[in-house]
Amino acid sequence: MWISKARLEAFSDGVFAIAITLLVLDLAVAASSGHHLLRALAELWPYYLACLTSFATIGLVWLGHHMIVGTITEVDRWLLRINLALLFLVSFLPFPTRLLGEFIREPSAERVTAVFYGIWLLLITTALPGMWGYITTGRKLVPDQVPQTEIDRISRRLEPGLPFYAVAILLALLVPQVAAGLFLVIAVLAFVRTT
Amino acid sequence: MWISKARLEAFSDGVFAIAITLLVLDLAVAASSGHHLLRALAELWPYYLACLTSFATIGLVWLGHHMIVGTITEVDRWLLRINLALLFLVSFLPFPTRLLGEFIREPSAERVTAVFYGIWLLLITTALPGMWGYITTGRKLVPDQVPQTEIDRISRRLEPGLPFYAVAILLALLVPQVAAGLFLVIAVLAFVRTT
Amino acid sequence: MWISKARLEAFSDGVFAIAITLLVLDLAVAASSGHHLLRALAELWPYYLACLTSFATIGLVWLGHHMIVGTITEVDRWLLRINLALLFLVSFLPFPTRLLGEFIREPSAERVTAVFYGIWLLLITTALPGMWGYITTGRKLVPDQVPQTEIDRISRRLEPGLPFYAVAILLALLVPQVAAGLFLVIAVLAFVRTT
Amino acid sequence: MWISKARLEAFSDGVFAIAITLLVLDLAVAASSGHHLLRALAELWPYYLACLTSFATIGLVWLGHHMIVGTITEVDRWLLRINLALLFLVSFLPFPTRLLGEFIREPSAERVTAVFYGIWLLLITTALPGMWGYITTGRKLVPDQVPQTEIDRISRRLEPGLPFYAVAILLALLVPQVAAGLFLVIAVLAFVRTT
Repeated sequence: MWISKARLEAFSDGVFAIAITLLVLDLAVAASSGHHLLRALAELWPYYLACLTSFATIGLVWLGHHMIVGTITEVDRWLLRINLALLFLVSFLPFPTRLLGEFIREPSAERVTAVFYGIWLLLITTALPGMWGYITTGRKLVPDQVPQTEIDRISRRLEPGLPFYAVAILLALLVPQVAAGLFLVIAVLAFVRTT
Repeated sequence: MWISKARLEAFSDGVFAIAITLLVLDLAVAASSGHHLLRALAELWPYYLACLTSFATIGLVWLGHHMIVGTITEVDRWLLRINLALLFLVSFLPFPTRLLGEFIREPSAERVTAVFYGIWLLLITTALPGMWGYITTGRKLVPDQVPQTEIDRISRRLEPGLPFYAVAILLALLVPQVAAGLFLVIAVLAFVRTT
Repeated sequence: MWISKARLEAFSDGVFAIAITLLVLDLAVAASSGHHLLRALAELWPYYLACLTSFATIGLVWLGHHMIVGTITEVDRWLLRINLALLFLVSFLPFPTRLLGEFIREPSAERVTAVFYGIWLLLITTALPGMWGYITTGRKLVPDQVPQTEIDRISRRLEPGLPFYAVAILLALLVPQVAAGLFLVIAVLAFVRTT
Repeated sequence: MWISKARLEAFSDGVFAIAITLLVLDLAVAASSGHHLLRALAELWPYYLACLTSFATIGLVWLGHHMIVGTITEVDRWLLRINLALLFLVSFLPFPTRLLGEFIREPSAERVTAVFYGIWLLLITTALPGMWGYITTGRKLVPDQVPQTEIDRISRRLEPGLPFYAVAILLALLVPQVAAGLFLVIAVLAFVRTT
């Protein structure tokens, strides 16, 4: 294939770095909140929580992406397509993050925003094992010198948070704010587990 | 020439990665839409469609750029200028994308916005074969060891979507929303064809 | 560890470069200020000051990061985590920067905004020596060929501005605008001292 | 010095790529302009002009930076500081660009905005020859194998547009809109001359 591994990594890293840095761009307090700025800042807690969760998630995807690409030596067209789909999911994450920060305290909107955010996290954290599954099926793109134990070790590390996110999304239908907190816990635990 | 191929690639990749990640920055729902957030999110469909189309187009340009630059070993001044023109077109794309998302459902503006967006896609997808045409004319910048069959293969892959975009732009004058959908179809088909 | 030093640097540099460039994004004058644009521009001085301070701080962190990573040859999981925490702090800086620019002249908000900004600078400039402390404790990640004198030299260069920021933060409780000026002085002095 | 040339280039390229891509971020039409979108788009011409000028200028600085850094083999502390000052000027450029786009047609603000923009272009295009002057004075950082003719050749290429910008800034005091057009002409001519 005519796409080198190095360029795939460089381009993907660029998108990860930008998406992770853009998260904070939406943090703002109204210009009129000068008289009670401390309170206005404190009331932004859902944004902080959402930023942290998304930051940890993108950091995790960056790590996993690095692990995966580190084992292969060539890129084929399907890997390329899966990779672009993953990048799309990641570059889109600031939107549900912003929604969570804005609407999680509105009774009429908290449910929708928490479920939407959860589904997006689920999609992202599922795409990575999906990519790995494509690579390792029949050892399609795995060089011979990579031992099966290494493949299994990476598989374990990438193990999708799928069941956890599924539970959290269901929870989001009942108690959205609790689910929002759970998303952060899952992201942090997954991060600790992977590193 | 004093610009190395590596730096040209690195700089171009930076611009591609940033432009592709900025697309989603304009996605927003009004703060007042809490009471019907699900509907507000659903009504953003033109934005999702525009984001996807532009994402696929920039991804495609990144691929084509990589193919082109992969065959050459040096950069001359005209290639540099053409490359910067291409980067300008790409970095500008978020603007027509945003317009399409915002105005495609307004009867009085849908025509203008769909035609504008289509023309921009046309410019971008034409610039790449233009760049390749410059490189291959008289094999100016193609090293001797690259066989003609390889050049022809790349030429076929870069074949501009020009006729398709021309049709879609004409269509945009009559049925702008259909044309908007067609832009996505063309981008996806071109992507599948190239990879 | 499976994260190469090179990728850690590339990803971190991406985040540094983006955060440093986003600082200016919030500079704006109201559309209605055309009649006294010069005055409107002059009244933005807190933004300029905040941008400069944050720019110098991020530049300094980039330098220090480079120094630190330049001495090691491998990355372990804790270093990776500390590094991501540092990147989070840096990517968050545009928010307190913006607040300082917006609220430092409002009597009711100047105290909060100056203290918040000061604490954030303190966190960032402390994270770097913290990272270095982790690396050098028991020479955990320092290769044998790096002499102790080199380690001591870097330690001196990274010496946290902690006491200075502590003083400036205390000052911010009394005279916030003076403290805001002091933040810039500290950043510039630290920069001169490090280079 | 402990900063490698490669990292200096990578970080600078990151800032250039981001600044050049952010230029278009401010392009927007009011949501209410649907009824006369074509006119609204046409009325944005000062933005297009400003974007193009700034794009050409940053492209030019990227080129010049590459030329300069291509001749040296090591970085000293003053070069590092000058480089960060250049990056600050470049990362700030989107602000005067936006102002030019917004206020060049307002009689009460056109003068201020054109002069401000011109001065910023002047600062940027002067910083680069300044950097080169520092490097070549006494051949401080120029390796012995680089012939004097090469140094002279680069000096000619970097020759500041200073006199041209000075004239254009003076002109901006009298006929701001003409000066705005002249800025683009200078940028394009400088670009053609350098490549």
